[in-house]
Amino acid sequence: MTEKKTWSDRFEGTLHPAIARFNASIGFDLELIEYDITGSIAHAKMLAHTGIIEQSEAGQLVAGLEQICQEYREGKFNPGIEQEDVHFAVERRLIEIVGDVGKKLHTARSRNDQVGTDIRLYLRDRIDEIRHRLRQFQRVLLRHAEARVETLIPGYTHLQRAQPISLAHHLLAYFQMAQRDWERLGEIRSRTNISPLGCGALAGTTFPIDRQYSANLLGFEGVYSNSLDGVSDRDFAIEFLGAASLIMVHLSRLSEEIILWASQEFNFVTLKDSCATGSSIMPQKKNPDVPELVRGKSGRVFGHLQGMLVLMKGLPLAYNKDLQEDKEALFDAVKTVQACLEAMTILLDEGLEFRDERLAEAVSEDFSNATDVADYLAARGVPFREAYNLVGKVVKTSLVAGKLLKDLTLEEWKQLHPAFEADIYEAIAPKQVVAARNSYGGTGFEQVRQALAKAKSLVEN
Amino acid sequence: MTEKKTWSDRFEGTLHPAIARFNASIGFDLELIEYDITGSIAHAKMLAHTGIIEQSEAGQLVAGLEQICQEYREGKFNPGIEQEDVHFAVERRLIEIVGDVGKKLHTARSRNDQVGTDIRLYLRDRIDEIRHRLRQFQRVLLRHAEARVETLIPGYTHLQRAQPISLAHHLLAYFQMAQRDWERLGEIRSRTNISPLGCGALAGTTFPIDRQYSANLLGFEGVYSNSLDGVSDRDFAIEFLGAASLIMVHLSRLSEEIILWASQEFNFVTLKDSCATGSSIMPQKKNPDVPELVRGKSGRVFGHLQGMLVLMKGLPLAYNKDLQEDKEALFDAVKTVQACLEAMTILLDEGLEFRDERLAEAVSEDFSNATDVADYLAARGVPFREAYNLVGKVVKTSLVAGKLLKDLTLEEWKQLHPAFEADIYEAIAPKQVVAARNSYGGTGFEQVRQALAKAKSLVEN
Amino acid sequence: MTEKKTWSDRFEGTLHPAIARFNASIGFDLELIEYDITGSIAHAKMLAHTGIIEQSEAGQLVAGLEQICQEYREGKFNPGIEQEDVHFAVERRLIEIVGDVGKKLHTARSRNDQVGTDIRLYLRDRIDEIRHRLRQFQRVLLRHAEARVETLIPGYTHLQRAQPISLAHHLLAYFQMAQRDWERLGEIRSRTNISPLGCGALAGTTFPIDRQYSANLLGFEGVYSNSLDGVSDRDFAIEFLGAASLIMVHLSRLSEEIILWASQEFNFVTLKDSCATGSSIMPQKKNPDVPELVRGKSGRVFGHLQGMLVLMKGLPLAYNKDLQEDKEALFDAVKTVQACLEAMTILLDEGLEFRDERLAEAVSEDFSNATDVADYLAARGVPFREAYNLVGKVVKTSLVAGKLLKDLTLEEWKQLHPAFEADIYEAIAPKQVVAARNSYGGTGFEQVRQALAKAKSLVEN
Amino acid sequence: MTEKKTWSDRFEGTLHPAIARFNASIGFDLELIEYDITGSIAHAKMLAHTGIIEQSEAGQLVAGLEQICQEYREGKFNPGIEQEDVHFAVERRLIEIVGDVGKKLHTARSRNDQVGTDIRLYLRDRIDEIRHRLRQFQRVLLRHAEARVETLIPGYTHLQRAQPISLAHHLLAYFQMAQRDWERLGEIRSRTNISPLGCGALAGTTFPIDRQYSANLLGFEGVYSNSLDGVSDRDFAIEFLGAASLIMVHLSRLSEEIILWASQEFNFVTLKDSCATGSSIMPQKKNPDVPELVRGKSGRVFGHLQGMLVLMKGLPLAYNKDLQEDKEALFDAVKTVQACLEAMTILLDEGLEFRDERLAEAVSEDFSNATDVADYLAARGVPFREAYNLVGKVVKTSLVAGKLLKDLTLEEWKQLHPAFEADIYEAIAPKQVVAARNSYGGTGFEQVRQALAKAKSLVEN
Repeated sequence: MTEKKTWSDRFEGTLHPAIARFNASIGFDLELIEYDITGSIAHAKMLAHTGIIEQSEAGQLVAGLEQICQEYREGKFNPGIEQEDVHFAVERRLIEIVGDVGKKLHTARSRNDQVGTDIRLYLRDRIDEIRHRLRQFQRVLLRHAEARVETLIPGYTHLQRAQPISLAHHLLAYFQMAQRDWERLGEIRSRTNISPLGCGALAGTTFPIDRQYSANLLGFEGVYSNSLDGVSDRDFAIEFLGAASLIMVHLSRLSEEIILWASQEFNFVTLKDSCATGSSIMPQKKNPDVPELVRGKSGRVFGHLQGMLVLMKGLPLAYNKDLQEDKEALFDAVKTVQACLEAMTILLDEGLEFRDERLAEAVSEDFSNATDVADYLAARGVPFREAYNLVGKVVKTSLVAGKLLKDLTLEEWKQLHPAFEADIYEAIAPKQVVAARNSYGGTGFEQVRQALAKAKSLVEN
Repeated sequence: MTEKKTWSDRFEGTLHPAIARFNASIGFDLELIEYDITGSIAHAKMLAHTGIIEQSEAGQLVAGLEQICQEYREGKFNPGIEQEDVHFAVERRLIEIVGDVGKKLHTARSRNDQVGTDIRLYLRDRIDEIRHRLRQFQRVLLRHAEARVETLIPGYTHLQRAQPISLAHHLLAYFQMAQRDWERLGEIRSRTNISPLGCGALAGTTFPIDRQYSANLLGFEGVYSNSLDGVSDRDFAIEFLGAASLIMVHLSRLSEEIILWASQEFNFVTLKDSCATGSSIMPQKKNPDVPELVRGKSGRVFGHLQGMLVLMKGLPLAYNKDLQEDKEALFDAVKTVQACLEAMTILLDEGLEFRDERLAEAVSEDFSNATDVADYLAARGVPFREAYNLVGKVVKTSLVAGKLLKDLTLEEWKQLHPAFEADIYEAIAPKQVVAARNSYGGTGFEQVRQALAKAKSLVEN
Repeated sequence: MTEKKTWSDRFEGTLHPAIARFNASIGFDLELIEYDITGSIAHAKMLAHTGIIEQSEAGQLVAGLEQICQEYREGKFNPGIEQEDVHFAVERRLIEIVGDVGKKLHTARSRNDQVGTDIRLYLRDRIDEIRHRLRQFQRVLLRHAEARVETLIPGYTHLQRAQPISLAHHLLAYFQMAQRDWERLGEIRSRTNISPLGCGALAGTTFPIDRQYSANLLGFEGVYSNSLDGVSDRDFAIEFLGAASLIMVHLSRLSEEIILWASQEFNFVTLKDSCATGSSIMPQKKNPDVPELVRGKSGRVFGHLQGMLVLMKGLPLAYNKDLQEDKEALFDAVKTVQACLEAMTILLDEGLEFRDERLAEAVSEDFSNATDVADYLAARGVPFREAYNLVGKVVKTSLVAGKLLKDLTLEEWKQLHPAFEADIYEAIAPKQVVAARNSYGGTGFEQVRQALAKAKSLVEN
Repeated sequence: MTEKKTWSDRFEGTLHPAIARFNASIGFDLELIEYDITGSIAHAKMLAHTGIIEQSEAGQLVAGLEQICQEYREGKFNPGIEQEDVHFAVERRLIEIVGDVGKKLHTARSRNDQVGTDIRLYLRDRIDEIRHRLRQFQRVLLRHAEARVETLIPGYTHLQRAQPISLAHHLLAYFQMAQRDWERLGEIRSRTNISPLGCGALAGTTFPIDRQYSANLLGFEGVYSNSLDGVSDRDFAIEFLGAASLIMVHLSRLSEEIILWASQEFNFVTLKDSCATGSSIMPQKKNPDVPELVRGKSGRVFGHLQGMLVLMKGLPLAYNKDLQEDKEALFDAVKTVQACLEAMTILLDEGLEFRDERLAEAVSEDFSNATDVADYLAARGVPFREAYNLVGKVVKTSLVAGKLLKDLTLEEWKQLHPAFEADIYEAIAPKQVVAARNSYGGTGFEQVRQALAKAKSLVEN
């Protein structure tokens, strides 16, 4: 049988048990309990500060709420399904502890602004944690990059070898993505960190509350300036899910690359046993489970973003019960992003080793220096498009002849175009090819070193 | 510290604890344990049937597996995170129970075909349950419809009153949607009920297995005819999520209507206390939480569909670890659809009452009989488009005059067009307006009664 | 037959015509032509500025490019499918016009950084336009709000009447949503307005280019600091689609409300003929097509967001052809959001009229003043939860008796609780109920006037 | 100025031009014109058949409609935005041609059932075309497979080499996916091919129509049995988009593999010049644009599916203008799937060549025969899990020693386990490893030949 509901005096009979189960959110919103208590403490203090209740009453409320928090942490407070949600569960326990004064806590407040407060406090903390994890991820990238400025790796477009690059440069691309993620989350944090407390059910309240006061106590940067908006806005959650999706896009790209690098065909990295798994049947297998799972989990987060947009589509103002569905999606997205960042950071930190000799071999066995030949000519006055076409031809004939560009004789070069001189060999050597891309943001070693320094200073601040 | 993994003899050292946690699926795939055991029993019997192992060995394996199932049901088998997944957990426990013969169970099998078997068996049962719930939902719709053939309700397009209809006809529209859902799931059940067991890791096996034999034991309707496809196909899961999304589309539409009907403005239904909830602050409120939550949960299921499509996008053959992510989405979609169907069935069954007098009033206070005037003229030879324009004019002048069509005098009608006779009043009375739409599938009472009879026979079979 | 491709000297034979059609983007990327030309002009000037080409050569290139722009505007330049994409089409036409010097334009540049430049310039302008439209939308909301401070409308939660509010307050909720949209787009503009020009194909270039110089000419606020990231980043497009989705969420909510308000049941607004449409068969119909279409178009934009996330998932660095698919989604989302904002602004501006007498009636016919009774008692020392329960009871008995709260005698009030005095009637009169919610952000008239003033100053700056 | 609307006699003034533009669907629904005319012809014939109009009138209507069709095909009928939609455009032109009798066409019909008819006829034809294209795609796969039964290729799980397989077997996995696509579309065709004609605006009609008659003329397999459902159902479109998404999942997986195979690292295939493209700057590049674009386009189709689900979410019965948004998504998904199937079929047919010597080398250079060693022991009575662990050890020591399994001496084998005999070398030779997987559905040559025969018979029917 379900317990008498807080709102039942206008109601007769009891809720159908299956409906009670269907409606109840306590199965997941208990995760918010500490934020709910924190919010209630601030609300109680505000009520006293504005004279709506007595200071002594506020003291009792705060003490009672702190006791519930303690009970929860010690595993002694375990509200069941009959409590409907975390807000009612806490209020009822409070009344048990402090008696009738507990019935004053909900003055000038509604569950609508209360849950809005809880979820924003929750998300604000999670954003801080995720930004911290992004920094750790960036630090591991930087550590590798610093050691790999002059390690070359093929650079790809269309998964075809394009031009060799510095491995550090490659890793720093992911540093930049993470940097945008970090900055974007900072902005979203600001838009999340606005207090709806005091918006009431939808219209504000008749009590002389001080919303700025409770907002300050809770560390909010501002207060919602329209109460209808305050209780029905979930933009911040959607924005967060958008940012989380972008993090997953970035991690899925790196995952794809690690999976490729770990294949027998690429063979650019060795996975360490501490971060790889085996097969139940094929004894030789060593599988890159971490990046595969991360890649797979991207869909999960995109799905939550989509689900939340669907949730909000076409809802009339103000609060609707549909909004209860915001929580599980948000909680799961938070956990997924945190777990993926942690796993990828560990994998990069101690789970993979680049195979230097294989990388060195890879950058010297193909035509990825062809652009440099075209540039060589263009720098000597041949219009670029003409130079490009000339080199296209020499690639074609070399392919047929089973030769690389470095195998051409100077005579052959000169036959192709008289502008070629002996320095062409130097110009197309992999190291020089990389070094020469010394434009800002390019893979030239000098540029990479500057980029590294700048990246370090970002992370250190 | 993590336990030695089943696959670790090619591996040195142990898995990083955070990585072990990240990779482990046992936190959710334990839900599959009974299907895993059922599948293993069938596999063991097949191994004996084909002589790959002895009958006595199979007997030991089956007994051991049945014991694990028993232990699980009694709450005595609780594998932890260190067991990685349900398959390894069961195999290890089996070896503990039956000794070395337990090591023969995985002969001619891989986790890849094993998990594929488990998830198909799981989903097949869930589809059967959901189809059963759809039937219950349809029965409640039918029960209401039978009692409401001659109850009129405004019919809407664009949420504007269009033409009055039989309430039974309206409810039967949802019956039809549920009927398509039921049929669609039947087809998906067939495509789900195909055995991948024996596909091995990806390529089949060197043992002389009999896939049809184990498939028969497990009630599968067929076996995958390509082993690579068998271990990497998740079409059935995506198809199921598509069908689940359509169920949610239909339920969300009905939810929206119930929410509208329960508003003070429509006031077409009264929510019973057993299926409604109150506000924490506004004592007068009675909220339609069930349909709101159902509407909100539609996004959740759409999100899972989207997530699974993203998951599969661009995965090379055959099995990839990404596929582990199929389970939670599927499990949650199953639970969501089941819970929503149950809640809506209860709500319809005992949670709402149509307000007859209000409905009767509603259908007689507007211009929703205007089409009938046009039809009246068209049936008397006036080209339809001309008749329609005439009626448009009379509606406009009536609106200005604050009159309804029934308030026009016969003279006024004749002035409009000489074809009008005294029977126009009969023709535009709501009951007649509805009765007259006696085309197949229309709202005419005769049609509705036939539709009801047909619907009943569908549900009774 | 397909024309010889720019890149074909390494190639033999010609492209299969169907493949040429499949690959070609000119069918849609011609929309970028003016940005492509602007970008090329800046590139040419930079090449001269750095001495890579002669000033006179740059002059020729610029003149040629300007001529192409002119030709395009006059409808004289219509490249077909055989031109593959807008970049090659312009380059080829340039060479036709200026001769061999045209072949120098592509020095130190690749299509990868070129298209990245084009799309950012395009989106930057579109963001400016959308922000402008948001401001127009806000102004219309403000104009209505200013005239409607003391017009009351029922406030809803769960689509149940909750508490009456100021219509201005309701409209200002949408102002706030639009304000967040405007601000969010401002941030995204900054992250979009970064130059990838000079990132080359992926690795930078061997030429001594000056990326800051061309970025300045193009009005970019910064340059990408990693070339791989610069050519493969589409975060800005996804962020934009996220912001566009939020705009659609907001518009879909307002649409839903207008559709409700225009129904016969709510009857809160009258749609003007200039913004409504009729039925092909029901002469009396006046349909709210605009808000219905806007609501329907929300899915379209969400779909583009999802599509772009899917596109990026798991792509290895750097550029991949998949990225070509970013354009149509982006273009369509831009057009959809612009059209919806325009249509909703017109609808609000001249397409609907609030029905004052109906609104006045609506707020006095229900129990939406019940919270005020509870607040009345709470302000007189009765613990809120107790007061709330008392009021729940009186609502229940009044409902049965067919009375509203205002119909209770003072004696009945006193029987309920001795704290009631004659001023209870004043306290529950709709106007006072609204006025009393004078907390910050609440619906109290004083608050609404302050909010209006603040909103006006935002829009005027 | 906009033309007088068909529905305007109840309306005063004209539609705002921007609103007219926003509402109009003629920009895209003209694509349906031939289906609209076909549907109208059947409707006219039915009206005569049932005596609602005269046979001679029907004759005039049919002749007029056929003339419009002819005019359209000859490019002489180009209705503009002022015509609102294709239905009104055709009706108006009809009245111009045949005079007043044209005004009778819309008797007993509404645009709601009319557009539902058009879109189902359209989609039915497109499904037939797509199924035809799937068959062509399957035939090309079969052609390759028949030539490649004994060509070996590494089989992968986790993108790690797992076990060598027959290339034909690999290709047949895609055949099976396409087969499911083909079958699924067949079922969806049946659910699409149901006539809503005669459902009227929402409630049926007062005229004595014969819906089965017009349905037969149009080749429908059935008629909707509930008129509300008939005009508001878009399940078939969502189902189609789901099936289209699955086709894209399958094509994206094959695309990913071709991209991998064409990389320098895998080097399993050579792309022919007729199906590859070059770089604007790197003369050596040959890019697999087709599979990249196909992979990228998967998101586009998933997005349309999502958009359509969002569209339908929470719509009250019956028709709402939101439904107008179904068309563009559907049209674009149809075109995308057709174009992708065509391009991939061409690519497979003439655009790529497998590199036999490289494939042969690949399958003999790794440990992908390790399972066979474990199976060898298990077949000789060693429990599988024990055998598996033994082989894990030998792989580890061989890796350290830089040896492959085939390099071990018989003595070394015997040291590992006494059950090894000289036939172990035969057992682990790639060809034998593949041949031995002779279980049903496995990669053994015998199985593959049977699978091929079965596949051919499917396609030939």
